[in-house]
Amino acid sequence: MVEINKMFKIKSLGERKYISPLLEKFESNDIFISDKERLFYKPFLDKYDETETFELAGPREYLYFDPKKVTPAIVTCGGLSPGLNDVIRSVVMESHYRYGIKHVLGIRYGYNGLNEENKLRPLKLTPDKVGNIHKQGGTILGSSRGGTDDIPKLVKTLKKWGVDILYAVGGDGTLRGAHKIYEEAERIDYKLSVIGIPKTIDNDISYIQRTFGFDTAFSKAVESISSAHVEAIGAPNGIGLVKLMGRHSGFIAATATLAMNDVNYILIPESPFDIEGKNGFLEYLETRLRRRGHAVICVAEGAGQEILTKDESSQKRDASGNLVLADIGLYLKKKIKEYFNKQNKKVNIKYIDPSYIIRSAPANPNDSVFCILLGQHAVHAAMSGKTDMIIGKWNEQFTHLPIELAVSKRKQVDIKSSFWHSVLEATGQPINMLSTDKNDKD
Amino acid sequence: MVEINKMFKIKSLGERKYISPLLEKFESNDIFISDKERLFYKPFLDKYDETETFELAGPREYLYFDPKKVTPAIVTCGGLSPGLNDVIRSVVMESHYRYGIKHVLGIRYGYNGLNEENKLRPLKLTPDKVGNIHKQGGTILGSSRGGTDDIPKLVKTLKKWGVDILYAVGGDGTLRGAHKIYEEAERIDYKLSVIGIPKTIDNDISYIQRTFGFDTAFSKAVESISSAHVEAIGAPNGIGLVKLMGRHSGFIAATATLAMNDVNYILIPESPFDIEGKNGFLEYLETRLRRRGHAVICVAEGAGQEILTKDESSQKRDASGNLVLADIGLYLKKKIKEYFNKQNKKVNIKYIDPSYIIRSAPANPNDSVFCILLGQHAVHAAMSGKTDMIIGKWNEQFTHLPIELAVSKRKQVDIKSSFWHSVLEATGQPINMLSTDKNDKD
Amino acid sequence: MVEINKMFKIKSLGERKYISPLLEKFESNDIFISDKERLFYKPFLDKYDETETFELAGPREYLYFDPKKVTPAIVTCGGLSPGLNDVIRSVVMESHYRYGIKHVLGIRYGYNGLNEENKLRPLKLTPDKVGNIHKQGGTILGSSRGGTDDIPKLVKTLKKWGVDILYAVGGDGTLRGAHKIYEEAERIDYKLSVIGIPKTIDNDISYIQRTFGFDTAFSKAVESISSAHVEAIGAPNGIGLVKLMGRHSGFIAATATLAMNDVNYILIPESPFDIEGKNGFLEYLETRLRRRGHAVICVAEGAGQEILTKDESSQKRDASGNLVLADIGLYLKKKIKEYFNKQNKKVNIKYIDPSYIIRSAPANPNDSVFCILLGQHAVHAAMSGKTDMIIGKWNEQFTHLPIELAVSKRKQVDIKSSFWHSVLEATGQPINMLSTDKNDKD
Amino acid sequence: MVEINKMFKIKSLGERKYISPLLEKFESNDIFISDKERLFYKPFLDKYDETETFELAGPREYLYFDPKKVTPAIVTCGGLSPGLNDVIRSVVMESHYRYGIKHVLGIRYGYNGLNEENKLRPLKLTPDKVGNIHKQGGTILGSSRGGTDDIPKLVKTLKKWGVDILYAVGGDGTLRGAHKIYEEAERIDYKLSVIGIPKTIDNDISYIQRTFGFDTAFSKAVESISSAHVEAIGAPNGIGLVKLMGRHSGFIAATATLAMNDVNYILIPESPFDIEGKNGFLEYLETRLRRRGHAVICVAEGAGQEILTKDESSQKRDASGNLVLADIGLYLKKKIKEYFNKQNKKVNIKYIDPSYIIRSAPANPNDSVFCILLGQHAVHAAMSGKTDMIIGKWNEQFTHLPIELAVSKRKQVDIKSSFWHSVLEATGQPINMLSTDKNDKD
Repeated sequence: MVEINKMFKIKSLGERKYISPLLEKFESNDIFISDKERLFYKPFLDKYDETETFELAGPREYLYFDPKKVTPAIVTCGGLSPGLNDVIRSVVMESHYRYGIKHVLGIRYGYNGLNEENKLRPLKLTPDKVGNIHKQGGTILGSSRGGTDDIPKLVKTLKKWGVDILYAVGGDGTLRGAHKIYEEAERIDYKLSVIGIPKTIDNDISYIQRTFGFDTAFSKAVESISSAHVEAIGAPNGIGLVKLMGRHSGFIAATATLAMNDVNYILIPESPFDIEGKNGFLEYLETRLRRRGHAVICVAEGAGQEILTKDESSQKRDASGNLVLADIGLYLKKKIKEYFNKQNKKVNIKYIDPSYIIRSAPANPNDSVFCILLGQHAVHAAMSGKTDMIIGKWNEQFTHLPIELAVSKRKQVDIKSSFWHSVLEATGQPINMLSTDKNDKD
Repeated sequence: MVEINKMFKIKSLGERKYISPLLEKFESNDIFISDKERLFYKPFLDKYDETETFELAGPREYLYFDPKKVTPAIVTCGGLSPGLNDVIRSVVMESHYRYGIKHVLGIRYGYNGLNEENKLRPLKLTPDKVGNIHKQGGTILGSSRGGTDDIPKLVKTLKKWGVDILYAVGGDGTLRGAHKIYEEAERIDYKLSVIGIPKTIDNDISYIQRTFGFDTAFSKAVESISSAHVEAIGAPNGIGLVKLMGRHSGFIAATATLAMNDVNYILIPESPFDIEGKNGFLEYLETRLRRRGHAVICVAEGAGQEILTKDESSQKRDASGNLVLADIGLYLKKKIKEYFNKQNKKVNIKYIDPSYIIRSAPANPNDSVFCILLGQHAVHAAMSGKTDMIIGKWNEQFTHLPIELAVSKRKQVDIKSSFWHSVLEATGQPINMLSTDKNDKD
Repeated sequence: MVEINKMFKIKSLGERKYISPLLEKFESNDIFISDKERLFYKPFLDKYDETETFELAGPREYLYFDPKKVTPAIVTCGGLSPGLNDVIRSVVMESHYRYGIKHVLGIRYGYNGLNEENKLRPLKLTPDKVGNIHKQGGTILGSSRGGTDDIPKLVKTLKKWGVDILYAVGGDGTLRGAHKIYEEAERIDYKLSVIGIPKTIDNDISYIQRTFGFDTAFSKAVESISSAHVEAIGAPNGIGLVKLMGRHSGFIAATATLAMNDVNYILIPESPFDIEGKNGFLEYLETRLRRRGHAVICVAEGAGQEILTKDESSQKRDASGNLVLADIGLYLKKKIKEYFNKQNKKVNIKYIDPSYIIRSAPANPNDSVFCILLGQHAVHAAMSGKTDMIIGKWNEQFTHLPIELAVSKRKQVDIKSSFWHSVLEATGQPINMLSTDKNDKD
Repeated sequence: MVEINKMFKIKSLGERKYISPLLEKFESNDIFISDKERLFYKPFLDKYDETETFELAGPREYLYFDPKKVTPAIVTCGGLSPGLNDVIRSVVMESHYRYGIKHVLGIRYGYNGLNEENKLRPLKLTPDKVGNIHKQGGTILGSSRGGTDDIPKLVKTLKKWGVDILYAVGGDGTLRGAHKIYEEAERIDYKLSVIGIPKTIDNDISYIQRTFGFDTAFSKAVESISSAHVEAIGAPNGIGLVKLMGRHSGFIAATATLAMNDVNYILIPESPFDIEGKNGFLEYLETRLRRRGHAVICVAEGAGQEILTKDESSQKRDASGNLVLADIGLYLKKKIKEYFNKQNKKVNIKYIDPSYIIRSAPANPNDSVFCILLGQHAVHAAMSGKTDMIIGKWNEQFTHLPIELAVSKRKQVDIKSSFWHSVLEATGQPINMLSTDKNDKD
């Protein structure tokens, strides 16, 4: 047996003493997965490393928790993403129908629902209550950001409520919080299984090929790009400018651009660019308007942060005196206007920000299926006593992944990849729009 | 025969000398409409006035223009509205297939395309070129605002290009421009038929029950209201705020609100309200948040203009020193934040402005059918030599309407009507939100 | 005062003794409609008849039923149509919020739910239970056909359950049943208000410009026509054949055909045609295939019934020995195949029957608004003690209509109308496809 | 270097003499893939086999064909599938913009377009002609089945037209045809690159995780299942019966069932069942109707073929005397009716067959992106002189796959997998519905 790299190892609460109720139902132990089944991180013949493998997700034959007595809880954190209700529903259904668990506690409004000062009683989720929730967007539990300042207080509430399993659905910050909850529980010897279900509409978690909501998100984004295109061709010197999600990674913008083929310029955080100066973005835009009379621009919200940082006019200071960066979409709009105003050229900019419309959409069928399976695998993992881990997907298999590995770095668009080249080709824009103009660069 | 009220009379270019080619096709003159067939403006037994009747639209047996020689042109002006391409397509198809006209000139970018300085050559539109354009939103001709400063110049271009018929698709301003073009043509004794096809996504033209694009617009708006609802329930003290079109009339906001039933407060131009003060909007909002934890607000862009006018902070001055009012949506967002900040109550406002997404949508099937019929009736009217008129719809019939009558006043939501009461009931908001607070009112 | 034609008069249960609770809410009696406000049936100057006018729908100031004690019931009958749940919801909401009625009884599975032998207990419908039902198609009450054999039995049940108002949502048969229920109630001096809400996806009820579900239906039908078009052009001699609803009237087929413009042949019940023989349908089809290589055909289910009646091979006899006509869609498919087989010409027919997909769709926003208003007006009429009537729409106003008038004849596509000519033009098919071949006709 | 299993090896036309034009554009050779980069077929630590690896797809630095002189052709065969136009478009765009190839020949109506007797001239496809075709379903080239009886004749045409590369888009039969074309070309020493792009809406090709169109297909299927559910609950003893594609594999039915969760019984080819007898399907259905009053059934077209084979009444003989099996959907409908008729129990069956509506849909954004990348990789492979292969996807990477390997066996739903168990759980049906009734089985 190969010695597994520490970073890929999954923690466990202890010995599994209960036999899974699935055995009875399916009358065969073929359905069970062993902890020893593992998947290569790098499935390439010349790059693979036997120590870097993921544990496979799936039902285990023996359980750590007694299904008759266990109390699971689920919490949804951060911004909305299509599929949250599907995940909640799947966890409740799987717990109830496969493992015979009566109900799952639904924590209200993120980790804040674990702070008893907020007086937010958890809901008792049963199949009846969650049967149709996947047909609407958002989360029936409510969500919120933060709430992780006093981890011991949250853990105290969990213990008081008798929670054995915490399913934490959220992004980077939520998962870091889940890891701290795990640490605190371990510190006080509280046998709590902490299972993360990664939620990032931006699809920017490493070691995971896909997060739920992403498919719905880029598919919905396509509609806004179409709108921008229609607006652009509908006016003299029409410019359609769409801002999409993507704080650190441009996957939504890039994938939507590739799907629709109506975008002329895409700007993402991974590919630096200049707005002004020779061979900068505005110069290219000007040339295009002269030649074609219209243009469509798609910008990820995190693009060009380094430009905003340099430009004092794009900054405000908040109550505490910290810099608050401007919105890159509105900033671009302003810059484009100024640029053509100087030339006395009238342009018609239509700015579209569909973020809330996208993130509040119900999951499309593809994401629905994905969420159902994610939820099921989360329950399998929790019941076997695993903890401090998340459910991932890799090489078309569901995997177990230590939280720390997942949050160790961010997944980004590789601008040397064939995928990004395909995107560039769909837009027809130059490989880079970095100004060759000294004054601009220094 | 009843003497028709002057305001309802349709002008004509002169004697009709040509027999319609439709006679041959349908082998019957049952299909023709006489100018004497008229429709009551007020079809109520106790209110009708025989002098106030509309001329019915439809094919005439005798034509003013010789179909073999006539040159029609079409122009689209102002902001986008779903169905523009359907109207263009219908005019071209009808001209070609029913009247045997080879092509229709497509003026580029609104009235500006008639100013030869802009060097915008018109397109020659044939069935081939317009066959599938109705499947995309916007206008293939491009559109623009204004361009009516020098009417004689535009008329000169029309004459130079040999145009006999001008189909002007646009709103209030466009129709006033069309009327001036008619006057100028008459002045110089140029036999030009000017037929307006009213385009206002807001559905705010009087004497017309419906304008094209409106059905698509409020139907699309429903999606944004759903998003706002999902966002509102997804966060503690969540507030979904949707700004919809409606500069002077709240039909889109009101109809979408009625369709979906997720809105708690609707604000339209026709119903004045106070934001602050006792029994003002914010006070009601506060009560609702306390009771229900979330709220959805739908505001028409023209709502509360009188408040913005009073509030200096909501105004900027443009280059010429004129006041520019703030956006009521962003203004409300700011006011809500300030109000709850003062109380140290954290609210989560999600602001959605779907305007460009709505107006750039392709027409839905209902609007498609409507646009096809509008276009056909416009061609019938023009070929019979009528001028200075628009195509309307009244009591389920297509009508002829003098331009001056149509632009004489604006259609608005009647806040004493059963329709508005139904909307109020769908929201559950009070009949009015006018502050009873003296300081606020004076 | 004009003497109203008996056919247009609405029956009433008796004196109105209660003042409407709406007075208090809206603090004005402007909102009330008088029974004397009437609308012309023919709003044309040269055709109107003052005796033929409709009573206007709307809230009355005085009520026949005491809102505190009244028990309404609602029943849905016949095939599904988009908007049923919207109507149920509207009746419940209006009864509860405007008139203060605690709940509405929901009769299960049509009139059969009033036959106590079927042991179907009615549901108690409250705002809570119907709040979101409009987001799904169908009817939460269930529906069924028939059940009107023993009217006295049904009326006995209604009386036993203490029902004062019966809202009957259904088509022709349902409305005739409602009329008989009214007659039986009157016979036994049982003060029952019977209010019909006409439901016919085919839009074929006379004196009513539009029935709910029709807008959604033809809009959804457009998708199937698009599919048929794609299939037709995707294969050599491809023929897309779509069968749409329309037992007696071709409105859905005609309107969908007009909206999409992809259909080459439309066949509806109102326009007789021959399949075989010179200048019959198949001959035209052959010519088109030769010229263009593909064709799209849209047939209403009731088209060509006279052909099926003549063709023995298209008939079966049911258990009781009655003739059962073949499905015109499948019959056409067979005939087309046979025709080209004889010529050794391979054609690719793709037959699409989207009926269940269309009728089970949720109402689109346009229909939703319509259903809400229909439901509200039904409640206003019932509370004022009117009976044996239905809610209609005419000249953009909601009206009261005696049931007998509504079912006296069927509304059909007028094949001499401008509308039908527009449809023919959209297809390009000949005015008629009646064979000129003697042998075929005699 | 590991010796690659013969089955996984890709054939090549010969030496690559031309440098790729991509080098100039991207100014780096990082973008190129070497033939030696390979991907494990089994990426599991305990199962992998170094000899079983796939060649990675992607651009090669050196080309076999001179981009300035090469003539590619593309052909689409078999039934429609969403994404065909996207693939055509991608191949044309990639050839033109990346490799500088002027046009691609578009073969009409499948392999039949290569038989000169059919007089079908190929189209010259340029970016202009294919720019917007992805917005409509189907294939602009037309498609057809068969046409492979005389392979030498087809190859002769290809040679005559000067074709160097043949992109064959189609399923099993098409790919076998492509392999034979390769063999014939090799036999006569004609340097033809034959690249297959696998098209099977059923997703049933082995060694390929996903085929284009599948995502759109199951997503659209979800709508029909919703309709069936609405119909089922809308009538007493309502049964919604949906037949979906899936001749040999039930992926569409299973995935759509999982996504929507409205199905009570799913029947697929991989899981045998009995209709009659104790513990057969009808018995379970009866129990459910008694308990719940309605049921939704989803059946893949290939399910229960062994039952149809046994049941003489379900068979017809075609012109040549061969057995033609009945449609399983209609057969089930008949059997259900008979079963309940015998018991005098009235059931309401609504049968929905959405196949043509699904397969003619335009690709959804997810499939669009997939098709673009498939097309690009096909062009890269062809230009490097590879042949007798198809483009696959495995472990999230695009791969090269010998045609013979791909068609060696069919991919099916593994009824022992966690995926199928999830589907069963979504329906709540028993693990199997094989009758325990002796008489029935023997």
